[in-house]
Amino acid sequence: MNALRIGIIGAGRIGRLHANNLKSRVPGAELVAISDVHEPAAKEVAASLGIAACGDYHAILSDPAIDAVFICSSTNTHSPISIEAARAGKHIFCEKPIDHDLDKIKAVIDAVRASGVKYQIGFNRRFDRNFKRVHEIVKEGGVGDVHIVKVTSRDPEAPPLSYVKTSGGIFLDMAIHDFDMVRYLTGSEVVEVSAFGACLVDPEIGKAGDADTCAIMLRFENGALGVIDNSRQAVYGYDQRIEVFGSKGCITADNETANNTTLYTADAVTREKPLWFFLERYNDAYIAEARSFVEACLNDRETPVGVNDGLQPVLIGLAAKESCEKGGVPVKVAKKTCGG
Amino acid sequence: MNALRIGIIGAGRIGRLHANNLKSRVPGAELVAISDVHEPAAKEVAASLGIAACGDYHAILSDPAIDAVFICSSTNTHSPISIEAARAGKHIFCEKPIDHDLDKIKAVIDAVRASGVKYQIGFNRRFDRNFKRVHEIVKEGGVGDVHIVKVTSRDPEAPPLSYVKTSGGIFLDMAIHDFDMVRYLTGSEVVEVSAFGACLVDPEIGKAGDADTCAIMLRFENGALGVIDNSRQAVYGYDQRIEVFGSKGCITADNETANNTTLYTADAVTREKPLWFFLERYNDAYIAEARSFVEACLNDRETPVGVNDGLQPVLIGLAAKESCEKGGVPVKVAKKTCGG
Amino acid sequence: MNALRIGIIGAGRIGRLHANNLKSRVPGAELVAISDVHEPAAKEVAASLGIAACGDYHAILSDPAIDAVFICSSTNTHSPISIEAARAGKHIFCEKPIDHDLDKIKAVIDAVRASGVKYQIGFNRRFDRNFKRVHEIVKEGGVGDVHIVKVTSRDPEAPPLSYVKTSGGIFLDMAIHDFDMVRYLTGSEVVEVSAFGACLVDPEIGKAGDADTCAIMLRFENGALGVIDNSRQAVYGYDQRIEVFGSKGCITADNETANNTTLYTADAVTREKPLWFFLERYNDAYIAEARSFVEACLNDRETPVGVNDGLQPVLIGLAAKESCEKGGVPVKVAKKTCGG
Amino acid sequence: MNALRIGIIGAGRIGRLHANNLKSRVPGAELVAISDVHEPAAKEVAASLGIAACGDYHAILSDPAIDAVFICSSTNTHSPISIEAARAGKHIFCEKPIDHDLDKIKAVIDAVRASGVKYQIGFNRRFDRNFKRVHEIVKEGGVGDVHIVKVTSRDPEAPPLSYVKTSGGIFLDMAIHDFDMVRYLTGSEVVEVSAFGACLVDPEIGKAGDADTCAIMLRFENGALGVIDNSRQAVYGYDQRIEVFGSKGCITADNETANNTTLYTADAVTREKPLWFFLERYNDAYIAEARSFVEACLNDRETPVGVNDGLQPVLIGLAAKESCEKGGVPVKVAKKTCGG
Repeated sequence: MNALRIGIIGAGRIGRLHANNLKSRVPGAELVAISDVHEPAAKEVAASLGIAACGDYHAILSDPAIDAVFICSSTNTHSPISIEAARAGKHIFCEKPIDHDLDKIKAVIDAVRASGVKYQIGFNRRFDRNFKRVHEIVKEGGVGDVHIVKVTSRDPEAPPLSYVKTSGGIFLDMAIHDFDMVRYLTGSEVVEVSAFGACLVDPEIGKAGDADTCAIMLRFENGALGVIDNSRQAVYGYDQRIEVFGSKGCITADNETANNTTLYTADAVTREKPLWFFLERYNDAYIAEARSFVEACLNDRETPVGVNDGLQPVLIGLAAKESCEKGGVPVKVAKKTCGG
Repeated sequence: MNALRIGIIGAGRIGRLHANNLKSRVPGAELVAISDVHEPAAKEVAASLGIAACGDYHAILSDPAIDAVFICSSTNTHSPISIEAARAGKHIFCEKPIDHDLDKIKAVIDAVRASGVKYQIGFNRRFDRNFKRVHEIVKEGGVGDVHIVKVTSRDPEAPPLSYVKTSGGIFLDMAIHDFDMVRYLTGSEVVEVSAFGACLVDPEIGKAGDADTCAIMLRFENGALGVIDNSRQAVYGYDQRIEVFGSKGCITADNETANNTTLYTADAVTREKPLWFFLERYNDAYIAEARSFVEACLNDRETPVGVNDGLQPVLIGLAAKESCEKGGVPVKVAKKTCGG
Repeated sequence: MNALRIGIIGAGRIGRLHANNLKSRVPGAELVAISDVHEPAAKEVAASLGIAACGDYHAILSDPAIDAVFICSSTNTHSPISIEAARAGKHIFCEKPIDHDLDKIKAVIDAVRASGVKYQIGFNRRFDRNFKRVHEIVKEGGVGDVHIVKVTSRDPEAPPLSYVKTSGGIFLDMAIHDFDMVRYLTGSEVVEVSAFGACLVDPEIGKAGDADTCAIMLRFENGALGVIDNSRQAVYGYDQRIEVFGSKGCITADNETANNTTLYTADAVTREKPLWFFLERYNDAYIAEARSFVEACLNDRETPVGVNDGLQPVLIGLAAKESCEKGGVPVKVAKKTCGG
Repeated sequence: MNALRIGIIGAGRIGRLHANNLKSRVPGAELVAISDVHEPAAKEVAASLGIAACGDYHAILSDPAIDAVFICSSTNTHSPISIEAARAGKHIFCEKPIDHDLDKIKAVIDAVRASGVKYQIGFNRRFDRNFKRVHEIVKEGGVGDVHIVKVTSRDPEAPPLSYVKTSGGIFLDMAIHDFDMVRYLTGSEVVEVSAFGACLVDPEIGKAGDADTCAIMLRFENGALGVIDNSRQAVYGYDQRIEVFGSKGCITADNETANNTTLYTADAVTREKPLWFFLERYNDAYIAEARSFVEACLNDRETPVGVNDGLQPVLIGLAAKESCEKGGVPVKVAKKTCGG
């Protein structure tokens, strides 16, 4: 195979982002088609990129000239489309999460296993240049045995209330990225989690039964501890920092900014604010993850973030949600694995 | 009163530190005498500073020419000496903690109240230039309503095992400083605490029934959440950082270093490590707290860190210890106050 | 015109860089062909990008289907090819410098004027995100009237001696970028320059009559002063920093690094070194300058770095060279302009 | 000698600063008396510190109970009082400069030599923790052979015009500190200097025949080059940074701030401004230099900044002034030494 012919399912914000990257920034990728239930959205993207458009994603799944799909549709469709795509023999890149229901995730895993297609879950932050470097240093033993991992993860603004209501809640929608990150950084599984939630940003979020601010404690299989804090609204921009502390030292990664200038005036010394949100911050990370997927497909190698990496953060998220609902009581993370 | 005549009780590391500061760095202080159960230790300090020495602190308490005492003796003597000193009409600066036993603390509070002397507890970190600035910014509303407070607090090396065994444990010995810090920064009381402990630094600490690494979650009266992480051993030095995040922004304070140079070589870009331990890091803070105490006594003003500030962190520490022993179950902080 | 059809002349390092960028990163650009006097080099690039190749650049100049050329051949060919290209009606993007000979530059300017084609000189650093931001802040009055501009500009390693010998010397080859930068940052012309040179890196460079280390003082038309320092060898990587100081403040821009992690160990606190050289540091700047050129051509607007911007730094460089040869005597910069 | 009994001559800003430091912060120092031509000024200081006061400094010089003097009077009295003090057998700490007249400096050197007293010149910046560390790293070979030294040195506000007129000009009054610094950092003498001056801050300074902004190039005996920039007015505070670049790397030292907090808001990310001026920035350096002097006197060791260190920066300053007056022509620094 010289190029991986790709169809994108879902022409929303993240679908368009992948479309643009796949069109020009990912060697070996040949973007062929895009679908969206709202067909005009697909057509608009298709026109600007010179590819085909359709309203029904089955047209993509049934096209023998297409090798792989990017599933960028709404969360509740991830698992059924994943299963269909696997059965159609397409390699699959699926935006997170696979699903919030463990049975549905299990069904996806089974289908992927049965078909032998490649599967990558879109935990883009693993491909951030800073977090990747922290992961490497930890893996090389640069901080020795891991004792404490810390994640600060705050969005610049709360999503619409309509989104909040179907999101699965802050633990499964937002903190899930951080649960993936701590697994990635420590190389160890989370065995127990305790969470405090609060509604400090928007009372409507609280009325919808969700928290908008939370603190989370984690215990890992290897004995290490973790702390995460989340907020739906950091007015200064997307705040994404990590730290891994161990027996031989500590490594930190900071936010990214639009530039590194410093302005000194009679009033203040000012630096640039963090980049506003994930589209800016993780732009290069999205390209890097797409490249990894395409390379894995073309060279028949393991994808860097497989189905088990899709499953585990959901298990942690469910435990965190339960802990929070019970007022912070520690909850064991269910031991399930798909061995991959 | 032109000068406050001071006697120091205890000529150990912290007693000597206060002695040197009071001798030359604290306007209005007149250091008169020092005592230590091991009299030669007192004599050595006394000789170098040209003051009187004694083996029995009662000589200080009964000296009508002495206005105030600094209680720097072993922890278990803090409360009885405090009570005696109060009855003797001496103003009291007492190293933390007053005691770990609530009844004993209560007795101190009663004695202080009855005598009308000034009482200051040695939470030196409040006087660190960086943390003080964070406190000011938060108080001025610079970050709006507080949503999350974070404390990173790691010692460079574990204390001797003998010390660990009588210390009251990591929550009452080490984290107690952080419990004071979060009260100081948020201006709100802690109502609930949840703690995970681990023994990752030295198995002997675990055998002694203590943790050497911990993660702590807090819930405040005003609704805010907090996270603290502690380690008995950060090989790169004393790691003391804080962060307060709120509705209008976030403020952070970093470690202090011996100098701000940066060295660029073919191998690496290196900066100075954090200052090694509390004597280096909080040197100026110790001077500032002594100045505050002396000024309060001379001008008959409230001390900046009073008996209630000595009580509350113990209440939080006891709750954290209980939570950790119960595997992380959230524990309510006992509601006690001495109104001051 | 929907797309600008482009031919590249010269398939060396910088030619290949532009080829890759134009192929996939520059909207509106359609890369058509590449030439090189060493035809296999052109063919290799052409094969990887699916474009045409030739040994003689006249094939590109005479191709009516080509709208613009990127001149990336050796420095001594910049002016004759510029003239031929202008006469052939092609828009021109020319790597710096146009030439070191003022008459030859004049001839290029005349030819460009006569033909009415667009002309952009490749001062890529203007498109660096940090330097661009400094320029904007200064232009907006953020530092008030400019008093002092400082440039630190050091290469990671000296070029081959063969290159040094034909480079025109450190002032016309290396510092010329800094002369462009100070004009860009201050918005004022340099009227006088004084330079000290030294040979501290490699004695062979000195034997070839060139300096490898230099200090330069500048005086601007608006009264401001400037200082530049250059070295052919900074063992820690490409050191490119700027600072503009004025009546209302100061703005600085720092080096770029591969990531922003900080590692704390018992030995040291280490951060990433500056990016190694211009290909890494200015990667995005090369894309941005190509985009600017393509947009200017497609929309018939002024290019952001025109022929006069190619001329002035050469005038400063010649004055600096003369000053250095005379041991640091200040030399007036010749007043010549092409009004653009 | 157990303690060095000290008299201070001059009760202005710098005299009071030394008085306070010597009273309480310098072990081995015993401050005895202070004089000032304006006797009430001396009396005020004396009263607050419990020492003697006089209007005529001869009372100090003739007091056999006094071992050493700090000369903090106006610049034009430094050399005559130095000579008198040396003849009176007093060790001498003299604020910079000794004088601007080489013959007068020569006379001081002769008198000091003849009497055998200790002599230290008040180049306080050598004792700044950051600059001292840079000096150490360079001396240890941390940057290899020195190629380039850079000094940024800007005052927060211009002195009164009356001061400017008698100051000796920006090169002998302000840059003289930087000339000392480059000698200290490189360990090599300046052989040639070239300077551009400008009047950009206050036209009145220009009318008084002085510059308020300058750029300076230096050539060192060991072949290294240097650049210095000065301004009388940096509205954001005292800007004092240095950098030494060499064959094996580069080391930088930054400004000091009141604290290291960072505030993130919706508007900006702000850090503290540099400390306002020399009293704040070099507070600890003044203590350290006094300690060095007292230790040298008590232990009969060389002072760290001797008479030759007082002479050389004046020679460089005179050359810089001449260069500036001649429009930037390079001027050789006169080769004079007093071998100390």
